[in-house]
Amino acid sequence: MSRPSTDGSPIPASGAWREGDHPGWRQFETVCSDRCFALEGGGILDEITVAYETWGTLDASASNAVLLCHALTGDAHAAGPSGPGQPTDGWWDPVVGPGKALDTDRYFVVCVNVLGGCQGTTGPASPHPEDRKPYGSRFPVVSTRDIVRTQAMLADRLGVQKWLSVIGGSMGGMQALEWAVMFPERVASMVSIASTAAASPLQIGWSEVGRLAIVNDPAWNGGDYYDQADGEGPTDGLMLARRIAQIHYRSDDSLEDRFSRATVDKMDRFNLWDRFQVESYLDYHGQKLARRFDANSYLLLNKVMDLHDVGRGRGGREAALARITCPTLIASIGSDMLYTPRQQVELRELISAGGAPLEYAEIDSIHGHDGFLIEFDQVGPMLDEFVSGIAKER
Amino acid sequence: MSRPSTDGSPIPASGAWREGDHPGWRQFETVCSDRCFALEGGGILDEITVAYETWGTLDASASNAVLLCHALTGDAHAAGPSGPGQPTDGWWDPVVGPGKALDTDRYFVVCVNVLGGCQGTTGPASPHPEDRKPYGSRFPVVSTRDIVRTQAMLADRLGVQKWLSVIGGSMGGMQALEWAVMFPERVASMVSIASTAAASPLQIGWSEVGRLAIVNDPAWNGGDYYDQADGEGPTDGLMLARRIAQIHYRSDDSLEDRFSRATVDKMDRFNLWDRFQVESYLDYHGQKLARRFDANSYLLLNKVMDLHDVGRGRGGREAALARITCPTLIASIGSDMLYTPRQQVELRELISAGGAPLEYAEIDSIHGHDGFLIEFDQVGPMLDEFVSGIAKER
Repeated sequence: MSRPSTDGSPIPASGAWREGDHPGWRQFETVCSDRCFALEGGGILDEITVAYETWGTLDASASNAVLLCHALTGDAHAAGPSGPGQPTDGWWDPVVGPGKALDTDRYFVVCVNVLGGCQGTTGPASPHPEDRKPYGSRFPVVSTRDIVRTQAMLADRLGVQKWLSVIGGSMGGMQALEWAVMFPERVASMVSIASTAAASPLQIGWSEVGRLAIVNDPAWNGGDYYDQADGEGPTDGLMLARRIAQIHYRSDDSLEDRFSRATVDKMDRFNLWDRFQVESYLDYHGQKLARRFDANSYLLLNKVMDLHDVGRGRGGREAALARITCPTLIASIGSDMLYTPRQQVELRELISAGGAPLEYAEIDSIHGHDGFLIEFDQVGPMLDEFVSGIAKER
Repeated sequence: MSRPSTDGSPIPASGAWREGDHPGWRQFETVCSDRCFALEGGGILDEITVAYETWGTLDASASNAVLLCHALTGDAHAAGPSGPGQPTDGWWDPVVGPGKALDTDRYFVVCVNVLGGCQGTTGPASPHPEDRKPYGSRFPVVSTRDIVRTQAMLADRLGVQKWLSVIGGSMGGMQALEWAVMFPERVASMVSIASTAAASPLQIGWSEVGRLAIVNDPAWNGGDYYDQADGEGPTDGLMLARRIAQIHYRSDDSLEDRFSRATVDKMDRFNLWDRFQVESYLDYHGQKLARRFDANSYLLLNKVMDLHDVGRGRGGREAALARITCPTLIASIGSDMLYTPRQQVELRELISAGGAPLEYAEIDSIHGHDGFLIEFDQVGPMLDEFVSGIAKER
């Protein structure tokens, strides 16, 4: 079952493994690094597990591999149905699969759980090598660049020297940008959707209040909550953080369209805790995330995004983005109030100025930042056209 | 020192009272109602204190009175310097005073602390008539209309039958709208800035997460925290609620312009708790509010805004706004991401359709919703021109 790595040795698969419902699909493979992993921010991880999924088959010349980079609370399950350990269908299932926009009969598609997350790749809930207890507060801060290097390590093992395309939205788009900047020779094309060259103070502010929502929860316990009797950790804090995020992931028009001022409770007499429908919706999203996500990973990955700045240590964003040489598609969403027009203009101007062939698309949506996870009718054709074009040229 | 009330009897002043620095200025007068106050939402308050400030002198025909309505965390100190119990200058000090845009040599300007607040007018921290202990969780939900009725009661006492103008921004703009709808015969003109005919689901969502930030703080104690040993109440929760609000009171451009990605801490090695400048700024605003504001009032007044809907019980917003007969100025701020363009368009269209003379102004600001508390160079002339015009016509 093991796919050969670049040196011909089998990939050590330490995680669960099962055949997907389609030939060639692989789920939850893991690959361990054989040396310690020095992080950009100064920390060291003695061992790393990288969990990922793949769809389709790598061709003989290893030229049909596409890397999808997931967003903050996403995971490697980009495509395919729900199942054990997967409460929902893949987050881009309508656009990834046999005969779909990212056609897995043509492309070998890979998606990797990010470093610091909680879906199989090493993160704060993983066992510390010294005592096999969860890292908790001991987990070091990682960066977008660290995440990309774990993906590069996996690419080596998979035999992918050069990705046909690296594609991501939001935090995934940050990774796509870093791929094109860090490894221009390994990326034939790149797509960054609703993302940014550097986190803005607006985004950092939202990130901070989400962090504080968790930290203010006594059950967070300084990050070491995994052995608490109730086993739940800072659920209230994480739910609040998610509610906050869910609002700015959407838009005024989107919420108005769906809820307006509809109420859950009768409002014939006013009560402080009567709820409007929009509150019930936010509660639902808070609860849903708290059931599947680790609060420490939430803290950490928000910090990853705050620290995201392609210009750091590279003479600024202009110089960094000038390293990009591959054909690039920058897509944004008109109603996005989190990754704002200013950031989209900056990306387009600086990448163009650096000389890379640049395409730009605006996704027409009232749904704000979440549009790239909703407007499949636009995202699919956009990706199909761009990636097909790249494939033809190679 | 007591100003005569409409029936000639002196106003019972139960609060602190001191002469202002200018002749005719009055601060912190209070007036008690002499009967119980039935609230729109079904609750009853057996007694009410209304604290307010005035500037200038009411003329013989009582035709020069202007009511300013303050926003969520504002208070009656709209003008004048800081002093005992007033940590800051008035929130509209640059535009209210002798020779200023709202010229207190011409106008008798009044500003009233809102019902449910924490600056002298009856609110959750006030003594319950039964046991003289703070209301806390026993305080009933009030509404914009209840707030306006306390102001109307005060107007009676002051001898003001008809306001030359009722003016407010944000939550104050909600009150101004309700004045013109509830008491069209008592309002010669109205100015509503950066406000709305009804709270949107976006605003209710932000309101909910602020509420939960407080409720999640164990020190909130169900709202009954006034006798706690530390005497502080849910400070962490209130600080978080304010940070959340402070972000959406501003804008992406405003925060970028001021902070960009500047850091407080050295970022040579990454730490989860290193702060960017924008975080320090949000911390500051959280601390500043927590020192002067009561968490229960924050909960309650956010609910006031969520419940705000001029159309409730009046056959909808169109019918309600058609009651407005006075000349009206609707002002909005282009970069406001909280009181969005959709709401401004609705106000203008429905008030116009109802037949009231409507003026519209857009405040040009990068500072978002807070623009009406920042762009004095625009707010001042706008108010001067509008109110002067009304005064001339009378």
